[in-house]
Amino acid sequence: MQRFALTLEFDGGPFMGLQRQAHGPSVQQAVEEAVTAVTGETVTLHAAGRTDAGVHALAMPVHVEIAKPFEPFRLMEALNALLRPDPVAVIACEAVAEEWHARFSCIGRSYLYRIANRRAPLTLERGRAWHVAQPLDAATMHRAAQALVGQQDFTTFRSVHCQARSPLKTLDRLAVRREGDAVLIEAEARSFLHHQVRSMVGCLALVGMGRWEEAQVGEALAARDRQALGLNAPPEGLYFVAARYPERD
Amino acid sequence: MQRFALTLEFDGGPFMGLQRQAHGPSVQQAVEEAVTAVTGETVTLHAAGRTDAGVHALAMPVHVEIAKPFEPFRLMEALNALLRPDPVAVIACEAVAEEWHARFSCIGRSYLYRIANRRAPLTLERGRAWHVAQPLDAATMHRAAQALVGQQDFTTFRSVHCQARSPLKTLDRLAVRREGDAVLIEAEARSFLHHQVRSMVGCLALVGMGRWEEAQVGEALAARDRQALGLNAPPEGLYFVAARYPERD
Repeated sequence: MQRFALTLEFDGGPFMGLQRQAHGPSVQQAVEEAVTAVTGETVTLHAAGRTDAGVHALAMPVHVEIAKPFEPFRLMEALNALLRPDPVAVIACEAVAEEWHARFSCIGRSYLYRIANRRAPLTLERGRAWHVAQPLDAATMHRAAQALVGQQDFTTFRSVHCQARSPLKTLDRLAVRREGDAVLIEAEARSFLHHQVRSMVGCLALVGMGRWEEAQVGEALAARDRQALGLNAPPEGLYFVAARYPERD
Repeated sequence: MQRFALTLEFDGGPFMGLQRQAHGPSVQQAVEEAVTAVTGETVTLHAAGRTDAGVHALAMPVHVEIAKPFEPFRLMEALNALLRPDPVAVIACEAVAEEWHARFSCIGRSYLYRIANRRAPLTLERGRAWHVAQPLDAATMHRAAQALVGQQDFTTFRSVHCQARSPLKTLDRLAVRREGDAVLIEAEARSFLHHQVRSMVGCLALVGMGRWEEAQVGEALAARDRQALGLNAPPEGLYFVAARYPERD
């Protein structure tokens, strides 16, 4: 068996999420079926992160194991030819040691959240950003965000469906900046809880609109209570950007 | 009657083009119908430029005349509420003098052409860029492009359906640069012939692939013959970026 690390880019719009779901199409199902069509083998895809329905990926590392010998470039080309009808593509492919695991070897994950902050409805960015019509103060959002950085109990910022054993996570970076009509939020951590980025963005948006005081973000965190969450931002603005591994640094 | 200058942003994907067409939906029809629904008046939309099916606009100035009094911001909000199902939005609206004409007052137009230059099929950029899998040499494309700048007979780079009286146009700027996987081509002129930008981009792509010598772009221009055109680039990479007017400079 040879383990292959694939890097996926996808538009999350038509998928129920990355993971296989009984009730609709998933990125996992699309890629596993493409591998089966190419190799005749049944495989299980393991991913660095799980993304919800509508969430996008710019570079999501995953791995599969294949018995049939393949040159990585040929495997990538064959998979892309089959995946083409779906908005998912393999943008890199390499053979890796069997100790390398897309999820368990990963030591860092980064996300980008895009807000389109303008009056007019979205056209070219529809499904690619969260449309917020009220003006946002990005500088205040950035200051408020710093209350979440560090090792924290993120119970408030965690989905009720989150399966992680502990709500303790270390957030390495949470930065907010404006670029024209766009407000961009970058988040980096070893790992995140389910809905953590969208929950943090939702509360920061309330601060940006002036509906929350800057200090309320830290108070919501201290409450350790999902009921203290102001707002969960919608999935279409979220992008899984990259994952880090020791061997690749 | 009050003349209103509207600035439109649209995803050209679902439209047969900006201008009204008998055989399918157009941006003009969508906006005219929205104005009628808001005002009860039948109006004719005039645009700074005409765009083909699939071509996008970041800021396309148009104008309409309305008898019913309207505050520009309210008109914009009402039109956007009606346009929302279609990927077209009014991003600016102002009352203008009746001498101001979106098309005839315009003294400069600029376009952007986006090429996604990578092996993998497109996902998030599908319908938003021309996918070219062969590596492109953007620096050579930029040098070759300079043969087209200035006053020229653009017969080679003009659709057979072009209605302009003369093939003579002055191209003020044609710049090619690479940004990661993207090759971006910016074109500026007082006005362009039908298919001119896509035709220029097509030939530059041939140069970038090494299928044409740099000098062949100038030779194709000198031929003044549509048959000398190497390739017409597809519409999905083309964006109408902005128009200039004397009063606004």
